[in-house]
Amino acid sequence: MQGRKIRMLTETVQSFLNRGAAVNLQKLLSKSHVADVALVFRALTTDERIALFSVVHGADSRASLLEALDPRIQKELIRSIPQDDAARIVECMPHDDAADLLGHLDESLSNTLLERMHGADSIQVEGLLEYEPDTAGGIMATDFVALTEDTPASDAIDVLRTSTDVDMVFYLYVVNEFGHLVGVVSLRNLVTVPPSTKLKKIMESRVIRVRPDTDQEEVASLVARYNFLAIPVVDESNTLMGIVTVDDIIDVIQEEAQEDILRMAGAGDDLEATRRVGDRFFARLPWVLLTILGGIGSLLILESVAGLFYQNMLLVLFLPLLFMVSAVVGVQSATFVVQILSSGMLPHGSAKSLLMREWIVGTGIGLLTGVVSGLVAGMVGDWRVALLLGLAVALSISWSAILGAGLPLLMRAANQDPAIATGPFTKVIISLSALGIYCSFLSLLHVIAGS
Amino acid sequence: MQGRKIRMLTETVQSFLNRGAAVNLQKLLSKSHVADVALVFRALTTDERIALFSVVHGADSRASLLEALDPRIQKELIRSIPQDDAARIVECMPHDDAADLLGHLDESLSNTLLERMHGADSIQVEGLLEYEPDTAGGIMATDFVALTEDTPASDAIDVLRTSTDVDMVFYLYVVNEFGHLVGVVSLRNLVTVPPSTKLKKIMESRVIRVRPDTDQEEVASLVARYNFLAIPVVDESNTLMGIVTVDDIIDVIQEEAQEDILRMAGAGDDLEATRRVGDRFFARLPWVLLTILGGIGSLLILESVAGLFYQNMLLVLFLPLLFMVSAVVGVQSATFVVQILSSGMLPHGSAKSLLMREWIVGTGIGLLTGVVSGLVAGMVGDWRVALLLGLAVALSISWSAILGAGLPLLMRAANQDPAIATGPFTKVIISLSALGIYCSFLSLLHVIAGS
Repeated sequence: MQGRKIRMLTETVQSFLNRGAAVNLQKLLSKSHVADVALVFRALTTDERIALFSVVHGADSRASLLEALDPRIQKELIRSIPQDDAARIVECMPHDDAADLLGHLDESLSNTLLERMHGADSIQVEGLLEYEPDTAGGIMATDFVALTEDTPASDAIDVLRTSTDVDMVFYLYVVNEFGHLVGVVSLRNLVTVPPSTKLKKIMESRVIRVRPDTDQEEVASLVARYNFLAIPVVDESNTLMGIVTVDDIIDVIQEEAQEDILRMAGAGDDLEATRRVGDRFFARLPWVLLTILGGIGSLLILESVAGLFYQNMLLVLFLPLLFMVSAVVGVQSATFVVQILSSGMLPHGSAKSLLMREWIVGTGIGLLTGVVSGLVAGMVGDWRVALLLGLAVALSISWSAILGAGLPLLMRAANQDPAIATGPFTKVIISLSALGIYCSFLSLLHVIAGS
Repeated sequence: MQGRKIRMLTETVQSFLNRGAAVNLQKLLSKSHVADVALVFRALTTDERIALFSVVHGADSRASLLEALDPRIQKELIRSIPQDDAARIVECMPHDDAADLLGHLDESLSNTLLERMHGADSIQVEGLLEYEPDTAGGIMATDFVALTEDTPASDAIDVLRTSTDVDMVFYLYVVNEFGHLVGVVSLRNLVTVPPSTKLKKIMESRVIRVRPDTDQEEVASLVARYNFLAIPVVDESNTLMGIVTVDDIIDVIQEEAQEDILRMAGAGDDLEATRRVGDRFFARLPWVLLTILGGIGSLLILESVAGLFYQNMLLVLFLPLLFMVSAVVGVQSATFVVQILSSGMLPHGSAKSLLMREWIVGTGIGLLTGVVSGLVAGMVGDWRVALLLGLAVALSISWSAILGAGLPLLMRAANQDPAIATGPFTKVIISLSALGIYCSFLSLLHVIAGS
């Protein structure tokens, strides 16, 4: 439903652009929500984007529009206009958004714009550029309302009335004479007390806070757990430096989820960074090379028992089934365990029981696959081979489950991100070890039968 | 860092529980944030949970604690106490949380509790139970502040002062005499205007709203796009029924991301629903059966060219490499395309160009894999076979990329969720078709060579 609305808006914009109907476009843009316009920009070609952006007048309006756009599109547009105009626009943006934008530009252009910006803005933005983009410092807003403990509620409301450049105000932060964070007052508390009440009477002094170098994922998990609308960022001396608001947290959660999914597939970790075919190729290459190595390893394992295959081609015909099912079972177990770990649903000390239960599930699936394989093999070959083959398949698949479940637990024990254990690396290890078990089990029984 | 805090809290709780130190436990619980206590509950055994819950006194405190717990734990605790006590606790919960809890109980227990609850609460909660849990109706809160257009700002603030059971107030909704939604006022606007200003003067009348049956994913995408803190839910006659707040939206986004990841692996779609080994087995079974079928299909394809294998075992030895690399490449392309589609980053009408570019990436990877395979084969076998084998591998892998990228686009064209195309189904199709290409290419060349 929402998709249709954006599609219609895009078509209207395109037809106005084709006709050069600037006034119509301005009217349409002023009536539309900036978030909708941002989606329209995504759907346009580069030339259309530049044409549409040139219709927007005034550094302020251009800044609000740019804030809502993807970094890639911001870059295109900033490059398409004179540098002085660009500097005026960046000045009008909140400092954190300005720093994000400059962080995505080439260093030389970023420096040029900083030089041409108003001194005070440029210093603030340069300070924010110091922080890693995926930390609290990298996503915090520096426009917040901080007042002293002795401020009466009525004065605090007056401050709100005049601070129009601060968006998303729900909390006022209370600081002492050194700028150290000592409490927080919700806007709701503020309006529901007598006007002369001092902030220190109504503030909550147990404030959960983060450091500028706190990873954005940890900031997001705090905000999600405590249902905050914003969380303050303080330096080592407890001086309030900025706040991270819930709308940025939603972006972080969506970004991290996308990153997890791309990593699981071994397809890089950032859509933006892999727009170009070449970047896409190189983002995937390491996993492909690893998998080729795994394939060559498999080749060596198979070669060592090639004699068996000449005697019984049936053992070859079941290789795809073995590969496919063991990979599916291993990835199912790995993914399940990773999600259990990341949701904090695993009671302390019960990793062993989790592993055991995944192994039971895997053994069930292995037995089922083994029986089916044995029956199929029995119908086309002799039943003694079928029995061995079924057992070998069952064993390999049951092992895949325990390996899939065990790897993320090992990763966690080694203080690594367990999610690594759902990627192509794990698939290669699972395939290799399933093949190894299959081949050695078969050759072992061959020896017994041959003796 | 946060993990350590919870671990220490859990250990303290456990040692108090072992010593039966009820007073210490009460003191500890009252000092701790309820969200932290909820994490402690996750880490305890069932017996410990019941013991800890029995230490909490008063229906109100028990209700606040229950609200923060996982459905599975809520169920355990509700079942462990007398039904009249349970009914009192459910009465104290916000209606939406009460409905969620009852929705997770067995129908008979849920009905008993509803009967024993206070009439007015029970009617409200029963109404909410009608909505599907993954819709706006299923997650909306019914405790909100709605006032008429002619209310002065000062009266609105008075209403806020007295409505203590409404949490997360940032917007006041404005309704006409029929209860129809006509506008919204932010709390910040309210405090920054003269007290006598009527709401209709300051309200925003273009309110983005959803219906009770709107899918929670769409609600979440609206809140994320427009940076809302809450979104109103109205029925077909535009009567305000409830609001969905941003903290619930964060839960939805996390839940949907987890669901996507589990589905990608074919490991069910809900961690809670697959706690038991049996449930876990049956959630994964369909994908395993499908994969077994794919394995049997592969067996038939291989059998049709088994003669080739007797003549040249090298062609068998490369099967694992073919399977592993084509699956990795196909899944990389499918995942990338699904993420591009779901992020709305694909310009309209450029599906063909996306497909073409993925095919170029896949062909690059295919050529690389083909060359490596050919070289390895050439070293151990004869070079003519090596050349054919390398070509067959390259062709199969390049096809896997286009298939992986094409399936999600087909799904979207058929109005299905493109994400389906990253699961085991796609892996099976990719493996089967890569194998088919490999075998037919090899046998075709065999025919030519044999003629």
